[in-house]
Amino acid sequence: MNKMEKGRAPGETTQRTERKGLTIHDVAREAGVSIGTVSKALNGAGSLKAETRERVVAIARKMGFRPNDLAQSLHRGQSFTVGLISNDSFGRFTMPILEGLERELAAERIAVFMSNATDDPERERQHIDQLMGKRVDGLVFTARRADRRPSLTTNIGDLPRLFVFSQNDDPDSFCLLPDDEGGARLAAEHLISLGCKRVAHVTGPEHFEAVRLRLEGYHEALAAAGLSPDPAHVLKGVWSERWGREAVDILFADGATAPDGIVCGNDQIARGVLEALRDRDIPVPGSVCVVGFDNWDVMTEAARPRLTSIDMNLYDLGREAGRRIIRMISGEKFKGVLRLPCTLVVRESCGGTPTERKGNV
Amino acid sequence: MNKMEKGRAPGETTQRTERKGLTIHDVAREAGVSIGTVSKALNGAGSLKAETRERVVAIARKMGFRPNDLAQSLHRGQSFTVGLISNDSFGRFTMPILEGLERELAAERIAVFMSNATDDPERERQHIDQLMGKRVDGLVFTARRADRRPSLTTNIGDLPRLFVFSQNDDPDSFCLLPDDEGGARLAAEHLISLGCKRVAHVTGPEHFEAVRLRLEGYHEALAAAGLSPDPAHVLKGVWSERWGREAVDILFADGATAPDGIVCGNDQIARGVLEALRDRDIPVPGSVCVVGFDNWDVMTEAARPRLTSIDMNLYDLGREAGRRIIRMISGEKFKGVLRLPCTLVVRESCGGTPTERKGNV
Repeated sequence: MNKMEKGRAPGETTQRTERKGLTIHDVAREAGVSIGTVSKALNGAGSLKAETRERVVAIARKMGFRPNDLAQSLHRGQSFTVGLISNDSFGRFTMPILEGLERELAAERIAVFMSNATDDPERERQHIDQLMGKRVDGLVFTARRADRRPSLTTNIGDLPRLFVFSQNDDPDSFCLLPDDEGGARLAAEHLISLGCKRVAHVTGPEHFEAVRLRLEGYHEALAAAGLSPDPAHVLKGVWSERWGREAVDILFADGATAPDGIVCGNDQIARGVLEALRDRDIPVPGSVCVVGFDNWDVMTEAARPRLTSIDMNLYDLGREAGRRIIRMISGEKFKGVLRLPCTLVVRESCGGTPTERKGNV
Repeated sequence: MNKMEKGRAPGETTQRTERKGLTIHDVAREAGVSIGTVSKALNGAGSLKAETRERVVAIARKMGFRPNDLAQSLHRGQSFTVGLISNDSFGRFTMPILEGLERELAAERIAVFMSNATDDPERERQHIDQLMGKRVDGLVFTARRADRRPSLTTNIGDLPRLFVFSQNDDPDSFCLLPDDEGGARLAAEHLISLGCKRVAHVTGPEHFEAVRLRLEGYHEALAAAGLSPDPAHVLKGVWSERWGREAVDILFADGATAPDGIVCGNDQIARGVLEALRDRDIPVPGSVCVVGFDNWDVMTEAARPRLTSIDMNLYDLGREAGRRIIRMISGEKFKGVLRLPCTLVVRESCGGTPTERKGNV
């Protein structure tokens, strides 16, 4: 089951917004079609052969054409400012998202101003008031985990807003998230491809949606390979190295049932797992292969051996948030949850040649 | 030698800015003096007995009195916005500074909007332009290291600006930094107080000013205790766990000259030192005591044993930046470098009872 497809937001088109000064005439000339055909192709409206539509869209994208309605609305008396409200007091997740967002918006000469709400609804309300007082064109909300947050308590009218690496229950909101399920599936598939037959999963607290989704991905990969997971090989705990070490004590108490591969819920857990295996003189990757989640260099580089991990591609998530908020400011509507693929980054903890593989979601 | 005293910026007074609605009359009544006396005491002007001045200042501070000139200028048609420009792409150093800054400015209903320049002067210039376009009342610059940065290439006129956890060579700029020298002195003093006689220092690259200052603090503490440092016990490298592990191989190659205490330049180095000592079955704190620098919980809590460390108090640095920029907006001038004290946080890597001690700078 591919959750990302299911969750794909409606209204997705393919225009890029990077180059300026192009008109619909340029695209028509390049494609050898009429202006009307270009318009139909880009708006997805009217009757047009699928191959014509695809060809025109591909040419427009390649040229960096930005439809006029977007260009016009962007330059019609707006403030050229988007507010980013973060609830990530570590900054570890927000900073790459901010960088991606700034990168996309800078191309439209839109500034991003970040405020930090640290999970305090009253401060968030103040930040929203202040940003609206500056007449921002849109608001982007982010957090330190891909879990559900309370709905906004402030009425921001029809101001464009989206949630990135953050999610809530309002069915009208638009949320951009990493594909946690696909990421964990990728990790488990990789271990299986290396020959692991007894793959365990050591993860965080079950009240995190990310924990539940990663667990699903793990189960899917095992099922697809015809492996039946040992229930004693799925251990939920907390997001710490200490828990990773404790989990190894549990998993390796009985040598007969010990795993030969471990998918970890984050890199800190994986680091703890690696240290505890080292303490027990269990060779990695010789006897056990280990994959983390986050691809946080502080952990992956210091681990012994260096840690294979799943990258959530937060910078790309930030760029997608930038492209979406621009289109929302220009009048497009999105809702629902859009999940972007994770990437496998191979290092020595799986014995593979260092490389990257993208989730095929 | 106390660098912080030497570096203290001129013009420091003691007013707090938290409570509102008080007037100079309230302070005069409470202190039993005339309005003129209060004014002289708070402005540090005119002739007044030192004890009177101190008493009035203490009362005004206790009452939370904010001088009228500040209140007036703050409410005279300004934008109630301060920009924070960060060059810390990790976010690890900026986020606590942002929190402290927001905390102080929120009390004055001033919003902080952060932008991320990631060491790119062109992006920094764009951010400055955009923030000035929003008519910010002041700019705060921060970075991911307390090292010197290039001077601003953008002319921001007389707009109030300061640098926090960031520094440049412009003699007119005002920079707030942690007292690196005092922090390292505190670390070495602590090891000496525990009975260590051969205290080593494993640190980062010498081109960092923080490395040079921490080295000075280390030498001062040893000199004050009558210990002469072994030159082979001072190792400069990089800011990584791997370097910490390598440094142990060097320091413990010869058991006769091995140290019994190690002051580390940051927590990652310290973590590597602890792991390498564990690999060699050298008991910590039984045979060697270890102190880190940064008090970064990701490292201190996962280390075995948990790591004693020096906290740079970045949140407090952010609060001081907030108080200063408010006063600069109200017309006060500051220049030079002001260093705020670090704190020792004791955990099991020194065997002490967990506690905190503030640098006496």
